[in-house]
Amino acid sequence: MKTPICDQYGIEFPLFAFSHCRDVVAAVTNAGGFGVLGGTAYSPDQLEQELAWIDSEVKGKPYGVDIIVPAKFEGKGENVSTTQLADRIPGEFREFVTELLAGHDIPVEEKKPRLGGSGLSGDTGEQLLEVALRHPIKLMANALGVPPDYMIEAGRSSGVPVAALVGAKEHALKQVKAGVDLIIAQGTEAGGHCGEVSTLVLVPEVLDALASVGSDVPVLAAGGIVTGKQMAACVAMGAAGAWTGSVWLTTEEAETAPATVKKMLAASSRDTIRSTGRTGKPARQLVSDWTKAWAPTPGGHPTLPLPLQNMLVEPQLRRIDKLAATGHEGAQALATYFVGQGVGLMNKVKPAREVVLEFIEDYVTAAERLSGSLDD
Amino acid sequence: MKTPICDQYGIEFPLFAFSHCRDVVAAVTNAGGFGVLGGTAYSPDQLEQELAWIDSEVKGKPYGVDIIVPAKFEGKGENVSTTQLADRIPGEFREFVTELLAGHDIPVEEKKPRLGGSGLSGDTGEQLLEVALRHPIKLMANALGVPPDYMIEAGRSSGVPVAALVGAKEHALKQVKAGVDLIIAQGTEAGGHCGEVSTLVLVPEVLDALASVGSDVPVLAAGGIVTGKQMAACVAMGAAGAWTGSVWLTTEEAETAPATVKKMLAASSRDTIRSTGRTGKPARQLVSDWTKAWAPTPGGHPTLPLPLQNMLVEPQLRRIDKLAATGHEGAQALATYFVGQGVGLMNKVKPAREVVLEFIEDYVTAAERLSGSLDD
Repeated sequence: MKTPICDQYGIEFPLFAFSHCRDVVAAVTNAGGFGVLGGTAYSPDQLEQELAWIDSEVKGKPYGVDIIVPAKFEGKGENVSTTQLADRIPGEFREFVTELLAGHDIPVEEKKPRLGGSGLSGDTGEQLLEVALRHPIKLMANALGVPPDYMIEAGRSSGVPVAALVGAKEHALKQVKAGVDLIIAQGTEAGGHCGEVSTLVLVPEVLDALASVGSDVPVLAAGGIVTGKQMAACVAMGAAGAWTGSVWLTTEEAETAPATVKKMLAASSRDTIRSTGRTGKPARQLVSDWTKAWAPTPGGHPTLPLPLQNMLVEPQLRRIDKLAATGHEGAQALATYFVGQGVGLMNKVKPAREVVLEFIEDYVTAAERLSGSLDD
Repeated sequence: MKTPICDQYGIEFPLFAFSHCRDVVAAVTNAGGFGVLGGTAYSPDQLEQELAWIDSEVKGKPYGVDIIVPAKFEGKGENVSTTQLADRIPGEFREFVTELLAGHDIPVEEKKPRLGGSGLSGDTGEQLLEVALRHPIKLMANALGVPPDYMIEAGRSSGVPVAALVGAKEHALKQVKAGVDLIIAQGTEAGGHCGEVSTLVLVPEVLDALASVGSDVPVLAAGGIVTGKQMAACVAMGAAGAWTGSVWLTTEEAETAPATVKKMLAASSRDTIRSTGRTGKPARQLVSDWTKAWAPTPGGHPTLPLPLQNMLVEPQLRRIDKLAATGHEGAQALATYFVGQGVGLMNKVKPAREVVLEFIEDYVTAAERLSGSLDD
């Protein structure tokens, strides 16, 4: 394939793969796509190690880093310590979590609030970016609002393009104005943080909005895309390529918790929910006893703002994953992870490389099917 | 264009247009698509008149009729009168509606509960179908569950294909088993009654599910489709064509209330909500003071089951439309109608024929864009 974005990013196929797993990132890049490491959950030292490993694997082929720097979060600009932030979690919320676990035969185990590691505090982004820029990254991406000034400036001075995820055309216009080089229009069917507009509507709406202000910033489609035919659908609508995440969670390389992989393979597209129960912001995830306990499930407990909800629950969710892997039934009922509606099409564990090759084949078939429909 | 479904239905372009307006149905059919009249809100006599008019306009070109026969509804099989059903509406609900109107400077005006005309009672379907089958219809469609036996049997004996709308792959499998000839996979972005899965995920998921049971029943894509490029996207994924509804609401021919048309032209894709506030079942509609007053808007009033909610509110909503047209501000704030997220792409009033021609042009451009991406 040869599209403008392929030339620009030095890739053969405009499939961008977001993953927290370095093996997936390297495998996708080596298969002709573009791997993007989700760096937010790492400490700067850990990120350095991960990127050094990727460099040795991809040998100059292009990859990127995604660092979530929320534009808004509890404690922003207040210079508060992790402990001080943790003190803002009401006791009643801690008790609710304790009861929820106890109701699933999981005894209380007080966990230190993790802030840096919880990934959504917003204050480690600059350090992580400094680490990333010591490596030959070809893209830095941001979610949850307009990237901070230091990211836009780092992009300008380093020549590394800056990408931003948006869930509404209004946000796309704001991002382009702020100087972003690549828009990722992410529909509500996406795993993780997402808006309410579907990919099929959002992609043309964002493209129209950008055209109306004379912007030619390329737009990747995201949200629900786990096959080449869906990617082809988005390119037919004018997207420059696809940004994917969920599909890599059930690859051989991924570090997804085994009980969760099992759930994902069995899930239909209706087994996800857009819930604030994990981070405090609406994020799509697998339905489980965990998501059922929190709003917006009717009768569910209210949730805290970002990053307090995340600080409260993430350590427990990691504990749940470990217990679930040992066969603990209560933990298996609670286990959940971010995943999009595309989970309904993810039915087999495969190597990441095979996923890329299947994407390409499926994409070509879809393109031929569509052009075939024009024949008289 | 030449696709199997074009041959089967005798059309030039596999664009199916659902509308309550006979002028839209005739215009789309005459432009090479396939118009489908929403017949549920008519009495049998009215439907007879509408279809006779369409016959005289389309002169043998194909069109169809859509009759909603809900599989489940309050009072089903009980042989209750409209008055008896109306008695099941709690007084507190009537008072809430009165207060909601009063809060928008609309004085109380008791309205008789309309059942047949409210369209969702489920008990006029058979009579409407009998009327429809006296005309040369080429499709009968049903929503809200597996079509009743009499529809499937009427399809068999008359040779008229039966179509069913589904929002989940499980429903598609059930429908095909029941003998349906055409599946309409309708995503959550659709106007009116809809499920939770997006079109981009639902279409391939339904196609995979049907293939897994060896079914070759064709699948139309629906939900959010208001442009040819979105239709092309769905055909690339394997859909046999598109089923549309919202896009016809802002055509010159449509009988949409003027204040609502104005709102639709100004709306972005985020100005809709999947609410039970109009029919008692989740249906996507324009956000307004009306939808904000009812669940699932946080703090909104609970709603009644189908058809009680519809009986309670539909006469008032029609009154609101009339008042809004006179410039009444309170009524304008309340006015709403079923519409999908594609409303964000509907920005101009056009003749229905022009919409069809633009669809075709946009479809061809999208197909060329996708096949162009394959060139080396």
